[in-house]
Amino acid sequence: MTTRIPELSPPPRLLLGPGPSAVHPRVLEALAKPTLGHLDPEYLKIMDRMQRMLRDLFRTENELTFAVSGTGSAGMEAAVVNLIEPGDSMVVCVNGVFGGRMVDVAERAGAQVTRAERPWGEVFTPEDLAPLLAQAKPKVVGIVMAETSTGASQPLEEISRQVHEAGAMLLVDAVTALGGMPVEVDAWGIDAIYSGTQKCLSCPPGLAPVSFNARALDVIRSRRTKVRSWYLDASMLASYWGKDRVYHHTAPINMSYALYEALRLVHEEGLTACFDRHQRNHQALAAGLEALGIHFTAQEGHRLPMLNAVSIPKGVEDGPVRKGLLERFDIEIGGGLGAFAGKVWRIGLMGHGSRQNNVLLFLAALEQLLAEQGYGFDAGASIAAANGVYGRTERQA
Amino acid sequence: MTTRIPELSPPPRLLLGPGPSAVHPRVLEALAKPTLGHLDPEYLKIMDRMQRMLRDLFRTENELTFAVSGTGSAGMEAAVVNLIEPGDSMVVCVNGVFGGRMVDVAERAGAQVTRAERPWGEVFTPEDLAPLLAQAKPKVVGIVMAETSTGASQPLEEISRQVHEAGAMLLVDAVTALGGMPVEVDAWGIDAIYSGTQKCLSCPPGLAPVSFNARALDVIRSRRTKVRSWYLDASMLASYWGKDRVYHHTAPINMSYALYEALRLVHEEGLTACFDRHQRNHQALAAGLEALGIHFTAQEGHRLPMLNAVSIPKGVEDGPVRKGLLERFDIEIGGGLGAFAGKVWRIGLMGHGSRQNNVLLFLAALEQLLAEQGYGFDAGASIAAANGVYGRTERQA
Repeated sequence: MTTRIPELSPPPRLLLGPGPSAVHPRVLEALAKPTLGHLDPEYLKIMDRMQRMLRDLFRTENELTFAVSGTGSAGMEAAVVNLIEPGDSMVVCVNGVFGGRMVDVAERAGAQVTRAERPWGEVFTPEDLAPLLAQAKPKVVGIVMAETSTGASQPLEEISRQVHEAGAMLLVDAVTALGGMPVEVDAWGIDAIYSGTQKCLSCPPGLAPVSFNARALDVIRSRRTKVRSWYLDASMLASYWGKDRVYHHTAPINMSYALYEALRLVHEEGLTACFDRHQRNHQALAAGLEALGIHFTAQEGHRLPMLNAVSIPKGVEDGPVRKGLLERFDIEIGGGLGAFAGKVWRIGLMGHGSRQNNVLLFLAALEQLLAEQGYGFDAGASIAAANGVYGRTERQA
Repeated sequence: MTTRIPELSPPPRLLLGPGPSAVHPRVLEALAKPTLGHLDPEYLKIMDRMQRMLRDLFRTENELTFAVSGTGSAGMEAAVVNLIEPGDSMVVCVNGVFGGRMVDVAERAGAQVTRAERPWGEVFTPEDLAPLLAQAKPKVVGIVMAETSTGASQPLEEISRQVHEAGAMLLVDAVTALGGMPVEVDAWGIDAIYSGTQKCLSCPPGLAPVSFNARALDVIRSRRTKVRSWYLDASMLASYWGKDRVYHHTAPINMSYALYEALRLVHEEGLTACFDRHQRNHQALAAGLEALGIHFTAQEGHRLPMLNAVSIPKGVEDGPVRKGLLERFDIEIGGGLGAFAGKVWRIGLMGHGSRQNNVLLFLAALEQLLAEQGYGFDAGASIAAANGVYGRTERQA
């Protein structure tokens, strides 16, 4: 048997899909550092520092801020199952795959779910939600800040005010947002939030940063029923991440080294510089794509900087382009999910992936593949347009 | 802020506790290989090979054999929540912390739990279970094969026969067992089993290998209610790990590289040689400890080779010994959990940690620390006894 299993040799891909995204070399190095015990005093120091960096990134003073031992979807489940008890009313905003997923997670947790719906690619306004809040009287309203399936960027400040006026708590999916655009947990009054390591943090998938504010923690502590998931029970996890250090489960030590280093990188660059970089590379990519007649699926004014979802132009086939990118250029981009399958490409410029060189290389490769499919465009137009954007900015990433 | 966060520099500990255990250098290297997308054809090949190696290690042909994206406790939750629907009867065997944890997990999943109990350190016989099976008529019987809190090794063959005669399914916790002793899923008729990467696989914590047989899969496919956890729903995970490759959640890519390499190491050594090595080093450690008048907590004939739980001798303080080991020798061992807190040490010889050098070094360090506490013993006796065991074996690990 043994001899039939080859050595592990993953090819070095340029990950420009919806995640996992390009991992920073310092993060890969951190992964391979010696494993510590989960109660070693040296590891507890690492946890403390990681929490401090997570709070700074979430822009919160929330005590209960930590990394769930699972991927972003485990973060979603952790946020939902801790706040919801069987029979609770929850409004979930659905304008893409991940809102839909939250409905499923919430129903399994026992919630009575009311779906708020908008077409894919559009965002929610307070007016959309007003009648549902009045009618469903929800305990929790769940909404996705950066819908990875459509590239739409959801504003939260006004909706947060409205949700709180209706007496509900706001639960936010920031899986794709965190590290690539401002996420202001305290200023916006977000009660519970979750993210993932594999998007704008330049880190492999495996952990889910989460944060609960004091109000959410009160709700959790005064539950009538146990949380349906032992693994994700925030009260028990709080005892391990807090001063008591009560053993709950064995933490994924090396993955947390990776997150530690990823957070250090974000803070070294500075949040504003990091968000500006994501925005600049997005604008260059957008200019390049538009020069090729390729249009965004998300409504204007609400496009994510780190996830560029565009309609595949008429006459161009999805499969050969993505296969060509992967096999001839070692570049991965994402296809469409759900209703967008076969119709949409998703180009991620996330974390360490959001760099000028990646934008230019991707556009050059795309031009080659589009020309092969007989798609008409001005050769070199996308590069000229992207370079035009970079030429207008002071510093280049 | 930035400047206040120091570089990551975990000290190189020798992990001889109950897990995480010593990680093999090849596994650490694998962790740092370039991240692939979770639907990259090259990654799918890695998943296929990983599944093949997992089946060989579990000694099963079970189609539904994969790694849950969480630590061992997520594996426990995955096994339980997929088999249990609200109101189902489940018998859980409790003779330590992890049986107790399974009760909690099962109750949260909606099970009507009947506890079978034995004193800590003892194991269950078919006679213990007979009346409970007749009375509770369980759908599932859960039992821990290697109870990490007590060091007891639970025989399964007869109990499996009995459980099946009673019409129930057998669910086995093999977190600490897998890779360190025979685990015969098909031969013993185990219906569902879970483990963790951080014990005898020489791999960091972060993934939970699981396997469900055809009968368990039928039960899952014919559920009346959805699995309470979306993240751990085996039917959905089967679609990603099976031929369809339907996206569920983003797999923890780099952790699965580590598991891949860890499994390659086990199969290179060969299962029998690997289990023999664990047994030999256990015997040497046991001889050494007994020469110091230190006794095992698990009943004779039922001691685990990879987890040596011993009573702290009278007159010796727990804290200073474990602190001394950690601070002066960089050696981690475990303290007691639950009822055993302050009374028991748990010395793990797991995977890459199960080596002659580790046994000898640990005994030498322990002698130094015991002497400082005024504990009476023949100086050098433990080393002589351990070397005696090694002298009697042909090969030395």
